[in-house]
Amino acid sequence: MKRNIRTIALALVFFLCGAFTTGLIINRKSTMNLLDNKKVAQVAIIVKDIEKSAAAYAELFNTDVPGISVSQEPAGKPTLYEGEHTQARAKLAFFNLENVQIELIQPVDKPSTWNDFLEKHGEGIHHIAFWVDGMKKHVNMFKDAGMPEVQSGGWDGGEYSYIDAGDKLGIVIELLENYNK
Amino acid sequence: MKRNIRTIALALVFFLCGAFTTGLIINRKSTMNLLDNKKVAQVAIIVKDIEKSAAAYAELFNTDVPGISVSQEPAGKPTLYEGEHTQARAKLAFFNLENVQIELIQPVDKPSTWNDFLEKHGEGIHHIAFWVDGMKKHVNMFKDAGMPEVQSGGWDGGEYSYIDAGDKLGIVIELLENYNK
Repeated sequence: MKRNIRTIALALVFFLCGAFTTGLIINRKSTMNLLDNKKVAQVAIIVKDIEKSAAAYAELFNTDVPGISVSQEPAGKPTLYEGEHTQARAKLAFFNLENVQIELIQPVDKPSTWNDFLEKHGEGIHHIAFWVDGMKKHVNMFKDAGMPEVQSGGWDGGEYSYIDAGDKLGIVIELLENYNK
Repeated sequence: MKRNIRTIALALVFFLCGAFTTGLIINRKSTMNLLDNKKVAQVAIIVKDIEKSAAAYAELFNTDVPGISVSQEPAGKPTLYEGEHTQARAKLAFFNLENVQIELIQPVDKPSTWNDFLEKHGEGIHHIAFWVDGMKKHVNMFKDAGMPEVQSGGWDGGEYSYIDAGDKLGIVIELLENYNK
């Protein structure tokens, strides 16, 4: 009788250990989402001459030619390329379409992921972007999944990270975080 | 008095001619929209191995791995590349995100715009797509604007045209028309 009780107790302990471990795994998976949402924020296009391209896209979309801005480097958020500070910048123009923002990017100086693309491919679609909550957490998750950060920086009110997902996804993914939302 | 009436009549004729011409110009402009809407329907990515990529994108989007289909050639709608019939096909996989559809495309055989991209750039973002009404009209408008069609074809229920907008926009644009809407 005592042996039976011991066997049952032991089985119960194993069962609980198994359930706990499974719970941890399930819980781990549920916190392992690479993205917070399934909504593309931006489609970004590298161009050589942003004034010319902004006018051409304005004609395509039958809209006003947008203003051109230059990428920022706010205090405390240096522009990093492969972990090193870079002087590279970009000229930017935005078109707010009905469901997504189209971003035109003209690389200025180097090194940057923008300039790498222009030198390798010429003009073309560089990345799709997603808004996230908690940049560091997401960058680490992408890194753990074999997709390292290639460039990071910020603007007055947020920060970005370019993820080199070439090996896994064949593209660059941009993560965006808005501090003021 | 008579001269005054003649002057007024002449002024009226000039005014009406001016108004008519302006109306024609405005009307012409309003029918010259290259696109019918400002909504990106698809962002399409060329991949080498669609089974591998579909699994990787399913992990990115935390969703099921979609089925793989092959591009069609319905009766009366041959697949044309640079105006000539081509045997080229593509394996396709679709992810319906919240605001846009992501399409994975693995080129099969050649010549095609899909295979051109893969040979020139490797994997990457090939085009953005827009739904239109009246494919022929839109293809002609793009052609008149210096953006010729590079490939066309269809599926059971619709047709597509790839516009080589490289010179003007730095990208390929796909036009889609749905016969069953």
